[in-house]
Amino acid sequence: MTDPIDPQHLDRLAEVAVKVGLNLQPGQDLILTAPIEALPLVRRVAAAAYRAGAGLVTPIFSDGDLTLARYRNASDASFDRAADWLYEGMARAYDAGAARMAIVGDDPMLLSEEDQDKVSRAGKANSIAYRPALEKIANFDINWTIASYPGAAWAGRMFPDLPEAEAVAKLTAAIFAASRVTEGDPVAAWQAHNAALRTRTQWLNGQRFAALHYTGAGADLTVGLADGHEWHGGASEARNGVVCNPNIPTEEVFTTPHAARVEGVVRATKPLSHQGSLIEGIEVRFEGGRITEARASRGEAVLLKLLDTDEGARRLGEVALVPHSSPISASGLLFYNTLFDENASCHIALGQCYSKCFLNGATLSQEEIAARGGNASMIHVDWMIGGPETDIDGITADGTRVPVFRKGEWAE
Amino acid sequence: MTDPIDPQHLDRLAEVAVKVGLNLQPGQDLILTAPIEALPLVRRVAAAAYRAGAGLVTPIFSDGDLTLARYRNASDASFDRAADWLYEGMARAYDAGAARMAIVGDDPMLLSEEDQDKVSRAGKANSIAYRPALEKIANFDINWTIASYPGAAWAGRMFPDLPEAEAVAKLTAAIFAASRVTEGDPVAAWQAHNAALRTRTQWLNGQRFAALHYTGAGADLTVGLADGHEWHGGASEARNGVVCNPNIPTEEVFTTPHAARVEGVVRATKPLSHQGSLIEGIEVRFEGGRITEARASRGEAVLLKLLDTDEGARRLGEVALVPHSSPISASGLLFYNTLFDENASCHIALGQCYSKCFLNGATLSQEEIAARGGNASMIHVDWMIGGPETDIDGITADGTRVPVFRKGEWAE
Ligand SMILES: [Zn+2]
Ligand SMILES: [Zn+2]
Ligand SMILES: [Zn+2]
Ligand SMILES: [Zn+2]
Repeated sequence: MTDPIDPQHLDRLAEVAVKVGLNLQPGQDLILTAPIEALPLVRRVAAAAYRAGAGLVTPIFSDGDLTLARYRNASDASFDRAADWLYEGMARAYDAGAARMAIVGDDPMLLSEEDQDKVSRAGKANSIAYRPALEKIANFDINWTIASYPGAAWAGRMFPDLPEAEAVAKLTAAIFAASRVTEGDPVAAWQAHNAALRTRTQWLNGQRFAALHYTGAGADLTVGLADGHEWHGGASEARNGVVCNPNIPTEEVFTTPHAARVEGVVRATKPLSHQGSLIEGIEVRFEGGRITEARASRGEAVLLKLLDTDEGARRLGEVALVPHSSPISASGLLFYNTLFDENASCHIALGQCYSKCFLNGATLSQEEIAARGGNASMIHVDWMIGGPETDIDGITADGTRVPVFRKGEWAE
Repeated sequence: MTDPIDPQHLDRLAEVAVKVGLNLQPGQDLILTAPIEALPLVRRVAAAAYRAGAGLVTPIFSDGDLTLARYRNASDASFDRAADWLYEGMARAYDAGAARMAIVGDDPMLLSEEDQDKVSRAGKANSIAYRPALEKIANFDINWTIASYPGAAWAGRMFPDLPEAEAVAKLTAAIFAASRVTEGDPVAAWQAHNAALRTRTQWLNGQRFAALHYTGAGADLTVGLADGHEWHGGASEARNGVVCNPNIPTEEVFTTPHAARVEGVVRATKPLSHQGSLIEGIEVRFEGGRITEARASRGEAVLLKLLDTDEGARRLGEVALVPHSSPISASGLLFYNTLFDENASCHIALGQCYSKCFLNGATLSQEEIAARGGNASMIHVDWMIGGPETDIDGITADGTRVPVFRKGEWAE
């Protein structure tokens, strides 16, 4: 049997993750999280990082069976614990200049059969512990990126009717294409893609919309944008001065909505995979920025627990635009993985906003961000609301409406 | 082909590591380090730990190829870096009550072909970074243990002429036997073994020797014992009150020598595997407790770099007695792994002493330990000096000589 994961393309994915994703600087340390299954990519990333002059690459691995060992054997009290010492250490490493890469690729439904109360408690404990490290990512203090590896369990969820090797081969092809490593010169391909996204963000930033109004696909939703918001997409400069691509792949342009100015109803257009569970058929109503009604045809209990994580979990922290014709969307695949699915569709995110999505965001205090409408929460969960029927108007401060999306595509 | 590592015995090894090695307490977190190859044991340890009531089990994995990726690709400056953030975090976790397990099993000669200057610098940087966490282990603040997994590269070093599966099967059998998991009731077998070791330590503690005098096997060595030293072996109580077995397997009884009272010459009776290099034919002279002459027939440069790590690296921090007929010695195997080889032979260790090897050690300050002759260093390297010719006399304060070992065995 031939290897379903071509090693040359894996080398190029490692190179793209280090050079484009991180733009790792000589002497920078790197903290890398990954499932053990992604070891072939982790080894290549480490080699590429060291060739780029990395100080020390420290990998932190996870394993699905180890996670399940906890759910199947641990005492009840275990589910309120988290590795705060590890996250606090990561936060200190970021302060000292380390970059961060996450490689995703594990089973998106690993925990779907486990006790959802325990899943939710463990997730919340982990979110609280992770906060000091996550804040530095959310504030874009350092260059960071997320890339992906075609894990067998993940492939099996996407292609349940195929033999494992075929499923992995299909997921591999999708990841390699979306990550632009099948093109002649992947780094040049990424430069062209980043330039195209920059054209969109420059237009949006010139418009200075006060709100976006969504219709179609079950939506009648007005999303007020934060005061002094700024659109971002593709390559972006972290506060440490390094221009990086936080997601490999990425197709979105995004900014910060106003936490108190969201009104109306919206439906999810794709299932949401959250902490190993699938939530389908989400429908919510916003009033004064807050979700006041929520239901789901599957996983409603998980959704409601998520919304109750903290006060900010019922408000938006991100609004993002992705045309329906984007390559990931055109693949027709549902990945059950935010990194891919959010880049196939217009989406919103519950929870924490990105401070970089403000004019001069790097200079703003948490209080100033909140005053401009930036939301705060320990969660940040992206959730797809776009489709081929989606129309979006930009509404300026004087009430003028400007077409932004028509039938799921950029209006101009 | 049958699995060369029997899963039932692996389950029992996990059980012994958690129940006997750690004696993990309900609610205790566990930090576990292991090579990725040991994943089948790590998963079983996690399950056993959670069944024992563990809070959270956090595994930190290493990988030989990742380590080599650094040596083969990194810039020179990389080799002075270490993951201080990770070790400081571990130290804080121990302060907060976590237990610690290390699973060893990687290639003992992984780094033997790499630039030894880089190996030494990376080792030193790691030792400095590791110090805050290692001190809590050395001071026995918490229950901890080391167990082992039969990794293929390790097995290949021990049995270079055998096919991999046969080599792994042989190493597996040796590990299972030495770890007492092939016996009917492994936990009861460990209780009996601990009782036998306690008989030896009680006799030695009753004698209150001022020094041990070694002859045979190329030795004429007088090792002064620290003032107020105490012999330990087998199960022992950590400062957190938990009685654990820090090594699985263990055959030694050991105490703290006096850092300034070692005189004479001694030869290594087995090769020493240190940081992926093999040091053979070590011969040293001690004067006033300090190594003043040192040579080796192989790896002398590695030895000399080790001795120059810091001032305490040339002085002894441990002296340990193991009869030549001990099961690991009787296997006739050289493991190239301290956990096994030190338990096949009388040995001494360069570097840091164990504060628990003093009467009321838990109450002593670093200054009081130093005043009693306890050595301090960032290294602790065990090194085998016993064999079938080894004679040892205990010398009491008034000069009386008492036979301790004759021809490699306990004299009584
Ligand atoms: Zn997004
Ligand atoms: Zn997002
Ligand atoms: Zn020892
Ligand atoms: Zn030792």
